[in-house]
Amino acid sequence: MKGFNESNNERLGMLRKGENDCHEHEKVTVCLSSSPKEEENNSKSQESVHITQGDHAGQSVIVSWVTPLESKSKFETYWKAGAKHHHKHKAHAKITSYKYYNYISGYIHHATIKRQYNVTYIYQLGEHNSSRRLISFTTPPKVGPDVPYTFGIIGDLGQTFDSNQILEHYLSNPKGQAMLFVGDLSYADHYPLHDNGRWDIFGPYIENSAAYQPWIIAAGNHELDFIPEIDENIPFKPYMHRFHVPFKAFKSTSSPLWYSIKRASAYIIVLSSYSAYGKYTPQYSWLEQEFPKVNRAETPWLIVLLYFPWYNSNYYHYMEGESMKVMFESWFVQNKVDMVFAGHVHSYERSERVSNVKYNITNGMSTPTEDPSAPIYITIGDGGNIEGIADRLDFSFNM
Amino acid sequence: MKGFNESNNERLGMLRKGENDCHEHEKVTVCLSSSPKEEENNSKSQESVHITQGDHAGQSVIVSWVTPLESKSKFETYWKAGAKHHHKHKAHAKITSYKYYNYISGYIHHATIKRQYNVTYIYQLGEHNSSRRLISFTTPPKVGPDVPYTFGIIGDLGQTFDSNQILEHYLSNPKGQAMLFVGDLSYADHYPLHDNGRWDIFGPYIENSAAYQPWIIAAGNHELDFIPEIDENIPFKPYMHRFHVPFKAFKSTSSPLWYSIKRASAYIIVLSSYSAYGKYTPQYSWLEQEFPKVNRAETPWLIVLLYFPWYNSNYYHYMEGESMKVMFESWFVQNKVDMVFAGHVHSYERSERVSNVKYNITNGMSTPTEDPSAPIYITIGDGGNIEGIADRLDFSFNM
Repeated sequence: MKGFNESNNERLGMLRKGENDCHEHEKVTVCLSSSPKEEENNSKSQESVHITQGDHAGQSVIVSWVTPLESKSKFETYWKAGAKHHHKHKAHAKITSYKYYNYISGYIHHATIKRQYNVTYIYQLGEHNSSRRLISFTTPPKVGPDVPYTFGIIGDLGQTFDSNQILEHYLSNPKGQAMLFVGDLSYADHYPLHDNGRWDIFGPYIENSAAYQPWIIAAGNHELDFIPEIDENIPFKPYMHRFHVPFKAFKSTSSPLWYSIKRASAYIIVLSSYSAYGKYTPQYSWLEQEFPKVNRAETPWLIVLLYFPWYNSNYYHYMEGESMKVMFESWFVQNKVDMVFAGHVHSYERSERVSNVKYNITNGMSTPTEDPSAPIYITIGDGGNIEGIADRLDFSFNM
Repeated sequence: MKGFNESNNERLGMLRKGENDCHEHEKVTVCLSSSPKEEENNSKSQESVHITQGDHAGQSVIVSWVTPLESKSKFETYWKAGAKHHHKHKAHAKITSYKYYNYISGYIHHATIKRQYNVTYIYQLGEHNSSRRLISFTTPPKVGPDVPYTFGIIGDLGQTFDSNQILEHYLSNPKGQAMLFVGDLSYADHYPLHDNGRWDIFGPYIENSAAYQPWIIAAGNHELDFIPEIDENIPFKPYMHRFHVPFKAFKSTSSPLWYSIKRASAYIIVLSSYSAYGKYTPQYSWLEQEFPKVNRAETPWLIVLLYFPWYNSNYYHYMEGESMKVMFESWFVQNKVDMVFAGHVHSYERSERVSNVKYNITNGMSTPTEDPSAPIYITIGDGGNIEGIADRLDFSFNM
């Protein structure tokens, strides 16, 4: 954790130029009116702040945070940055919490702000100055075909020295406006009884990015947190309590594990690799109805996030995506998906435009072939988590 | 419905030889002490009676029934058939009910009886003679390698004239001791808003078999009852309320949609075609741990029930099972599963022992080949439901 603390302090130092000082740092507007010590104390009562897109077209933002106490912090206050007279708005948070074996979470707040496109808002969590910490985000530009936008992409992050380097690297680049996160966040399940305290550490860990720009997240296998032996039988329980998504926007679907958003010139479909995807299942039915909704004249870019790669040359997790691929690949080709981002394999890999959709069990046509309608598949699971890199590319394991 | 009523009356007539008359019919012991008219009235308050195995090894039975009123019928009473002095036992039912859009179910009772092997028990539902109707079942013989046993197998039943013929055909055969039902029961989802009243009709419809011998059931797509448009977002809600299974026995798993039982000389694994089966998912993890538990010295027969066929030459539902097959087939071959029963295709088909497990994406070895370790795959979806038969075997639809 040395690396984290060092660079975190460095960043905090960078943001805390002085008392009562508002300044611009890259795209992030930060106003600090408290001393670092005060700010630190206050921040402890408003932890794990992160934001994500709150509706289908990008005019809303979901702001999420955790407090140890329920009563004090149901609201967030926000206002336009730079305005002469701050007209302050209030957003009411829905509060949830959960138990996980012997762990009880803090109060997890989710508040949705619906405002204008392309405006920077400053927000403050809690009521009546219970937190004097100010954070900000910029809403995206109005959706349209010629709108430039830059996404960051990370998968399999964790909370190691290497994870921190990845985050710092991303934070040091002013271009990234929103994060596409393909799955595997905290790796809490690497600790005894999936120590959910690790989720509490992870929240502040990503805050320097995730509180300031939306993280668009797909769920990975380390979000499953499924231990039937201790009666933890609800897959994705900690994740679904902590990370809300706009799955009900645009009449999306019935589960927060798959959803879509439009942002700038991109239509982004987020799938769940560890939910059911067989024909007639909720996710299958949703995706079937989703593709016709994509208007390429409005959003020429069609991007899919999922967790396990469908095309993967690595020894690790080889063919684990095959089961979902045989279900959905023909739709991806028919609908000319541009790019599919996946994680799981702790490595980087990029495919040609290939497909494997002609196979009919008996015709032997099961070898991927070049296909200009097929997506490019990008594995981006090298986020630096505790499990190390996936560097075995030999195929001696095959029959 | 004409066919049903006719043959149902015929069967009721057959069972109602006279008042205060106990008699043996095939394996079914029926004692009737009420007039047909009385019995009919009483039976209306104890409807949809069905039983299934209640534990892993077959010493328990779950008896399920529906009443319009909660208060009167929490108990079932049962005793050994043929004993001079009936020593009566009571089993307490757990009661559940559910809403489905504008439908409210009756009170659905599930009571578990744990008794000896190979004994016929008579049971009576409700308290204090609220029902004077007596039904019976015979517990299976103790599990062992040389124990003969005969299963019936039905899939895609529905509630048509044809469905009734299938049931009558099965009932007319004295050999069947328990039913393996591979999925698609009531087809309630063919009616507006998935009219759950159709489940209430289906319950009595199968009672002549299902109240007397256990139905071991896998869930099919017509059990999904998923309509997000009317906020019916919980897949399998009606089915899971109405049909309980011993999924917690033998520390089985976390969901009633997949489970296993031993019965006579068979180990039976029931899978869920419309739940998640990707690596790390609850069903995957359960099945991975399940195969090592099978002791072929004790249960030489290893049978799997699932819903969509993995090998299917019909036009209908062609390759719909592929996604699950690529996940689990190698386990089936390694563990020498004897037979896999599936439904979905409204037809009968039986495969050779074939497998398709050598494929590695690039080697082209994706054509099924003879494999003595592979199961025989049997499609038995010709139960007679409303959708008609699947009689198209041409492959012109393929590329």
